Amino acid sequence: MSITRNEIKILKTLKTTKGRKKENRYIAEGVRLLEESLRFDHLPKMILIDQSQIDDRMENLLSTMQKKSIRIEKISSKDIEAVADTKSPQGIIGIFEKRELKTSELSLRKPRKILWCENISDPGNVGTLLRSALAFDFEMIFVSGSTADIFSPKVVRSAMGAIFKLKIVKDTESEIFKLIKTQNYSLLAADVLGKPIRVTGRKYSTKRIVLAIGSEAIGLTDIIKQKADEKIRIEHEKEIESLNASVAGSILMNEFYKMEKGPK
Amino acid sequence: MSITRNEIKILKTLKTTKGRKKENRYIAEGVRLLEESLRFDHLPKMILIDQSQIDDRMENLLSTMQKKSIRIEKISSKDIEAVADTKSPQGIIGIFEKRELKTSELSLRKPRKILWCENISDPGNVGTLLRSALAFDFEMIFVSGSTADIFSPKVVRSAMGAIFKLKIVKDTESEIFKLIKTQNYSLLAADVLGKPIRVTGRKYSTKRIVLAIGSEAIGLTDIIKQKADEKIRIEHEKEIESLNASVAGSILMNEFYKMEKGPK
Repeated sequence: MSITRNEIKILKTLKTTKGRKKENRYIAEGVRLLEESLRFDHLPKMILIDQSQIDDRMENLLSTMQKKSIRIEKISSKDIEAVADTKSPQGIIGIFEKRELKTSELSLRKPRKILWCENISDPGNVGTLLRSALAFDFEMIFVSGSTADIFSPKVVRSAMGAIFKLKIVKDTESEIFKLIKTQNYSLLAADVLGKPIRVTGRKYSTKRIVLAIGSEAIGLTDIIKQKADEKIRIEHEKEIESLNASVAGSILMNEFYKMEKGPK
Repeated sequence: MSITRNEIKILKTLKTTKGRKKENRYIAEGVRLLEESLRFDHLPKMILIDQSQIDDRMENLLSTMQKKSIRIEKISSKDIEAVADTKSPQGIIGIFEKRELKTSELSLRKPRKILWCENISDPGNVGTLLRSALAFDFEMIFVSGSTADIFSPKVVRSAMGAIFKLKIVKDTESEIFKLIKTQNYSLLAADVLGKPIRVTGRKYSTKRIVLAIGSEAIGLTDIIKQKADEKIRIEHEKEIESLNASVAGSILMNEFYKMEKGPK
């Protein structure tokens, strides 16, 4: 099988939100991310390689991918660079199918802990939150508002493979509220005026929770704060107004994770 | 007083590491950062403004700065853009003096908790760590190796004003080790193979500590891990190899902060 110029032309559009939307695919660059996709058994539809850059590690990866019947195409260094988002791509790019559900498409089984990203515009922050979510056992992510596209190359990179494992649910706020209500989740809103997690967190250590984190600049919108069962905050010195959004979300997820595991 | 073309030419170099080194100054852009500099009483040497962008908030800020005899210079929009690092500067830039000490220059009084950034190359991560350090009462920062320049515009921006308050100490690892030893600090190294902070952290709740965080890609170097009194880690699911460096550092600082404050 060989790749056509037209196919390459289409793949070049996957760097853009528009291209990803139209094609329902996204790119993940580099050996490490592709190894992660194997580990999570979330395989690419196709792999593009620059033959001049193949080393032992890549060789191993490609041989495993071949056994799984993944389509592998050799293309020129110039084309690799044009498809890639990074300035110096490592000579290997995976093309993946976007998996993003509406709340109505969710199966019966739902995880106990869900992270909700509302209006988190920085792709690095979103990727970091996904990485922490997987680390602290938040298996599902709600995405709403102006949150950076989960499948953009920068989010995929900073999520370090978490994207291949987490369930991504993108929907309107009202549909998300509906799900929260019918499925008996408690909605916990990260807010600088909330109760300290230390004081109020333990109440939720066995309940179904949705933890909502808002934008870097202004936090969560009023509608989420109003609908929340509880507003929670991280205690810190007054000298700084707030923590970085991905740090705040990660600390809160870590707290809920520790409560679940209990003191040992 | 009026600014010369030659001065503007020099200020344009402050975006680069070389320029900042030569001039011993750095830039902080935007009304908010300059308000923070007032709050922390760390005043700029000079303020550059684009008169076409002045609003009420900026007017207030400038009037306070004027009372404090800060030099304020009106320059053209084009010059503001050339001095600024961001694409759309807000029309106001502060020029600050770099305050970075060697270990030998430190005064007698030293804080109980210090953060050590070793080889943290991403400016966003460094800035985020500084912001968290101030939030969790780590008043001093050790900087070594290839850590991003603390005074680069991107670090200054993501630190959200913390740069104006924290004491920054940049030195070689061996000088830092010397200080740690003579001043009776315990060196705690963040390491994925360390003991859980939950298990071992409380031992250090009243001791002087230096918490070391290493590079995004490979963590701390062996020399720091070997010299450490203890290696500590954050417990998380095995599915992810490690957390983002700024998240890991922030979670650990938060743990030490909580221990100090004690349960309420």
